Amino acid sequence: MLGKLNHVAIAVPDLEKASALYRDTLGAKVSAPQALPEHGVTVVFIELDNTKVELLEPLGEGSPIAGFLSKNPDGGMHHICYEVADIMAARDRLKADGARILGDGKPKIGAHGKPVLFLHPKDFAGTLVELEQV
Amino acid sequence: MLGKLNHVAIAVPDLEKASALYRDTLGAKVSAPQALPEHGVTVVFIELDNTKVELLEPLGEGSPIAGFLSKNPDGGMHHICYEVADIMAARDRLKADGARILGDGKPKIGAHGKPVLFLHPKDFAGTLVELEQV
Repeated sequence: MLGKLNHVAIAVPDLEKASALYRDTLGAKVSAPQALPEHGVTVVFIELDNTKVELLEPLGEGSPIAGFLSKNPDGGMHHICYEVADIMAARDRLKADGARILGDGKPKIGAHGKPVLFLHPKDFAGTLVELEQV
Repeated sequence: MLGKLNHVAIAVPDLEKASALYRDTLGAKVSAPQALPEHGVTVVFIELDNTKVELLEPLGEGSPIAGFLSKNPDGGMHHICYEVADIMAARDRLKADGARILGDGKPKIGAHGKPVLFLHPKDFAGTLVELEQV
C-alpha cells in the first residue's frame, strides 16, 4: 500500500532562521516561503535528491501546529507523509484494521492540492502519519 | 552539502507490534529485526520506494533511545538522517557556523557501517539530525 515517502514535516518557531540553517549551514536547496492560509501554515520546501522536508511555521489564528510548538518551543518533527495510489482503498483497509483516521474520516485536499488523510498518532507508534494520494 | 534523505528513525516501545502495523495495516515491505548490541537498539527497516524508515527498539542497558521512550511512551520520530559525500568537510563547515556536534565531534561508525555524526537538536529546529557519509 505505501509508496514513496513524500515528505517529513518539521514545525519551526522561526521559518526564516530555519531556512537559513538548511540553506547556509547544511547547504540544501531551499524554496521561497509559501503562505497557505487555508492550512494555517507558511511552508518552505527543502529539496533533497530523493524526497523533501517541509519546514512549517504557524500562520494566523488556530494554526494546526500551534499546539505542537507550544509543547516543543524549539520545533521538531511534526509528521511523516507516505504516498498511496488509492486513498479510499487505504482508508477502508485502515478502518477495517481498527486504525483511527483523524477528523471526519474523509480525505481533504492537502497542501499539495491532492487528497490526504491523517492517522491517529496513538495507533502509529506515536507518529502523526499523513497519507497522500498521488 | 545534503544529499539524499537516508532514513527517518522512529523509536518504538514494541518492535513486533510496530512491525506488524507497517506490514499488515500499512502494507509496507518490512525487514526481519536485526539486533545491533553495539548501538543499543534492535532495528527493523521499512523499505519504501525512495528511502527507508527505521523502527528502533531499545536493546540492553543504557540504550541511547531509552530516555526518548520514557518521555514518549507511545514512541515517536527520533531522528532524521541525511547523506553527505564528505563527513569531515561537513563537520568543519558546521563547526565554522557554530553548530554543535554531539559527543567528541569525531565521526563514529554507525548502524550501517558508515561514518556518522549527530548534530545538536537545539541547533537544528528541535530535530536530532544524523549525517552519514555514503
